[in-house]
Amino acid sequence: MIKKIDHLGIAVKSLDDAIPFYEQMLGKKCEKIEDVPEQKVRTAFISCGEVLIELLEATSDESPIAKFIEKKGEGIHHIAYLSDDLESEMKRVEEDGIRLIDKTPRGGAGDMNIAFLHPKSTKGVLTELCEPKK
Amino acid sequence: MIKKIDHLGIAVKSLDDAIPFYEQMLGKKCEKIEDVPEQKVRTAFISCGEVLIELLEATSDESPIAKFIEKKGEGIHHIAYLSDDLESEMKRVEEDGIRLIDKTPRGGAGDMNIAFLHPKSTKGVLTELCEPKK
Repeated sequence: MIKKIDHLGIAVKSLDDAIPFYEQMLGKKCEKIEDVPEQKVRTAFISCGEVLIELLEATSDESPIAKFIEKKGEGIHHIAYLSDDLESEMKRVEEDGIRLIDKTPRGGAGDMNIAFLHPKSTKGVLTELCEPKK
Repeated sequence: MIKKIDHLGIAVKSLDDAIPFYEQMLGKKCEKIEDVPEQKVRTAFISCGEVLIELLEATSDESPIAKFIEKKGEGIHHIAYLSDDLESEMKRVEEDGIRLIDKTPRGGAGDMNIAFLHPKSTKGVLTELCEPKK
């Protein structure tokens, strides 16, 4: 089951610029900065109600975030939905015809297991399913 | 004060396609469909936790949503933050150097007063501030 939106991933050129900007705009404090070397990104989390804003900075030109910014500029990168059972939700959406980018769950930021769904099968929205690591 | 994310606006070509798709993917029901003639859009709302997914379909080629889809394809259009006092928040962010698209609040879907901030001053994210009509 999808419980709620867990976080919104936002691609930014520089966390050093984006963190103070978001802190000021939202009137909230950044709670955590975390490197995700497998994805070649550095992430910063700011809570806004029950949803986290996840700012994403590329740590290499090969990072998916570097490629996203090169193509589209800074902006919203993905929506992540919290599920109560990631593997069964992945199976369910795949049976409904949605293409999985990740065939099996992998580790993401924030101590989560995650899987991305292909935007070509989700009406243009890069979509993540996630659940806390057990 | 920004209280939470109120809704995520997602540009779609067709509500008739997108509503059943999102209902199936999220396992939630569409709660309301509403025309917003001033914006030349038809909107559909699906709750996911405390956040609404707002699907946006253009009702005219002149609609901002038609232009968005023509340029970028279907996808996430904006993030809307719920404020406790829209006019004072607009003033606050403007004083912080954010450019307002709407200089004064205007009526939006869902019985809200809204104002958009310019994505060039919000790191590429089209951002809306909103509050329920009083």
